[in-house]
Amino acid sequence: MLEKLSTPERLLAFSDGMFSVIITIMVLDLKVPHTAEPAALIEQWPEFLAYGLSYLQAGIYWVNHHALFKPAEKVDDRVLWLNLLMLFALSLMPFATAYLAETGAKPFPTAVYAIIMLLPALAFDRLHRAILRVNTGDEEIGRGALLKGVVAIGLYLTAAGTAFWSPLAALLLVFGVSVMYFAPIRYY
Amino acid sequence: MLEKLSTPERLLAFSDGMFSVIITIMVLDLKVPHTAEPAALIEQWPEFLAYGLSYLQAGIYWVNHHALFKPAEKVDDRVLWLNLLMLFALSLMPFATAYLAETGAKPFPTAVYAIIMLLPALAFDRLHRAILRVNTGDEEIGRGALLKGVVAIGLYLTAAGTAFWSPLAALLLVFGVSVMYFAPIRYY
Amino acid sequence: MLEKLSTPERLLAFSDGMFSVIITIMVLDLKVPHTAEPAALIEQWPEFLAYGLSYLQAGIYWVNHHALFKPAEKVDDRVLWLNLLMLFALSLMPFATAYLAETGAKPFPTAVYAIIMLLPALAFDRLHRAILRVNTGDEEIGRGALLKGVVAIGLYLTAAGTAFWSPLAALLLVFGVSVMYFAPIRYY
Amino acid sequence: MLEKLSTPERLLAFSDGMFSVIITIMVLDLKVPHTAEPAALIEQWPEFLAYGLSYLQAGIYWVNHHALFKPAEKVDDRVLWLNLLMLFALSLMPFATAYLAETGAKPFPTAVYAIIMLLPALAFDRLHRAILRVNTGDEEIGRGALLKGVVAIGLYLTAAGTAFWSPLAALLLVFGVSVMYFAPIRYY
Repeated sequence: MLEKLSTPERLLAFSDGMFSVIITIMVLDLKVPHTAEPAALIEQWPEFLAYGLSYLQAGIYWVNHHALFKPAEKVDDRVLWLNLLMLFALSLMPFATAYLAETGAKPFPTAVYAIIMLLPALAFDRLHRAILRVNTGDEEIGRGALLKGVVAIGLYLTAAGTAFWSPLAALLLVFGVSVMYFAPIRYY
Repeated sequence: MLEKLSTPERLLAFSDGMFSVIITIMVLDLKVPHTAEPAALIEQWPEFLAYGLSYLQAGIYWVNHHALFKPAEKVDDRVLWLNLLMLFALSLMPFATAYLAETGAKPFPTAVYAIIMLLPALAFDRLHRAILRVNTGDEEIGRGALLKGVVAIGLYLTAAGTAFWSPLAALLLVFGVSVMYFAPIRYY
Repeated sequence: MLEKLSTPERLLAFSDGMFSVIITIMVLDLKVPHTAEPAALIEQWPEFLAYGLSYLQAGIYWVNHHALFKPAEKVDDRVLWLNLLMLFALSLMPFATAYLAETGAKPFPTAVYAIIMLLPALAFDRLHRAILRVNTGDEEIGRGALLKGVVAIGLYLTAAGTAFWSPLAALLLVFGVSVMYFAPIRYY
Repeated sequence: MLEKLSTPERLLAFSDGMFSVIITIMVLDLKVPHTAEPAALIEQWPEFLAYGLSYLQAGIYWVNHHALFKPAEKVDDRVLWLNLLMLFALSLMPFATAYLAETGAKPFPTAVYAIIMLLPALAFDRLHRAILRVNTGDEEIGRGALLKGVVAIGLYLTAAGTAFWSPLAALLLVFGVSVMYFAPIRYY
């Protein structure tokens, strides 16, 4: 029998695997100094800062993915594909982080970083709506969370533009999204 | 007591782990430009395209693996080994992708890419039959999905041959398999 | 409905993914000798020793994470974030290990190693208290385990200081924490 | 309350994560040729052969781990630690494989490869006995499987010695263990 809907167990197991590998792969870009001089380690601070910021972004996506699927009982193929799309966007995060650190937060790479942070937010918005449709038949229930997502998208876009004027301000805007998401969210 | 059959939980957990690491390992091949010049990033487009195409292929395998095991209640040793064989074939995908990107989609590497995409399809076909045998005792039920798999195998083979004439056409054929698999499939 | 509490399944799946990738990523730093001479392999003993010590530390954290969450039925957002914080600290372990091995256990890198081993212990302490609060409403129950954690923190700090006098003694102190944690712990 | 026994769910999730990362990390050692010449790819056959052989070994360990834990309902701390020990031994497999491929299967690296394949077999034997003790209170039930394990250990040891005389014969002996383990095993 063709079951069009399935339970989310495997989607979650696969997503958790993706999240954990995406995050830890970023650690590989923390290059080890070849000397024991403290200065050699200290001058790597931009790499550590970039890693910390990206870990925070990925952590926020995970916590929100967790909150989004907590009450979900059913997923359809649309949800599977949108989830894959969101994970694809997230999988570019290690690249964006290494690019930011390697070039020392110059304007263009910082803008690319903000754009790549924006991509999973766009996919997350579609995913959220698809899950609402399958599980409640009503897209309006999660309006607060959807709105918050739109604000995040706006902040990322603003950060991308700001990067050409001040990379530091752009990164602070990206960090601002994290702060905004510390509070728990009502998805349904 | 020797139980010849077991439930698929662990097979799925292991497979999801393999899928997620195989996919994310491909990200490591996206080299970071050493300068902040936009041109340096833009000239890397073949790497990003290769990654995108391979992510799509791996995603399709995951969605189909998900659909294949959704109604499966029992697995035997044959299924365990065929699943391992399919994952082995999939694990060559990061190599094939990096090879394609590194050589700039020349004929021979493109043919190798198509062949390596073909290998998991061959294993998937055997796996599909083995699961039908254990769970339904009837290989004919999933005829539509089996047929689709055979078409995919044919497309990959055609792509491998086409690569020597036009690598671009070959990659479009590989992409064509993805398009064909967007529609959901009835495995039982 | 906003459920403020959730079951720990996904937190555990994600954590297990993080643990396994963090540990195995350290293997990537075991460089392969380019010649078949036994001497070339033997002179790599500091790398293997560093890997062994770090594997032991990570293993201890996993076993304790396992013990901590065994009786936990509920997690709140605070637990999610503290768990993410602990995994962040753990994710720096491959860096610390490679740094230790690369510089040949000089004083400063050894102190950095001890400090990085200390960070997850600090987060673990907060995580432990947060879990007690959610699941029992009483932080005093796990007093023995909390005390053990404080002793571990003290040992790591002592190791960090000792490193400037004797890196070997510092690494023995870090190893001492492992020995102390071999015995099972009562978290509730 | 201190529960000395726990269910194996998390041990299995963590182990599956470790297995999948250990296996896929080996793919990273398949270096990509820089030219599109078929010859450049073909001369890499030892790397592919080494990867294939190691994948087979890891696959056998996974299938046997699966069979060993299938009827296990309880695990104690001893099982947790022995499982970690076995995974530690397995985690050296990518190193051994790269070492074998890099040096072109010279005698010493081939002997090291056989020894590293032997280590998880030794840990697996202890793990098997520990699981029998917790779940059945009787170590004699799994005598057939234990004996098979001892034969495997003997074959690996013989392979290590044979390597100094003929690396090819040694690798065939390692392959022989795989063949022996294709048949399903009765662990209880």
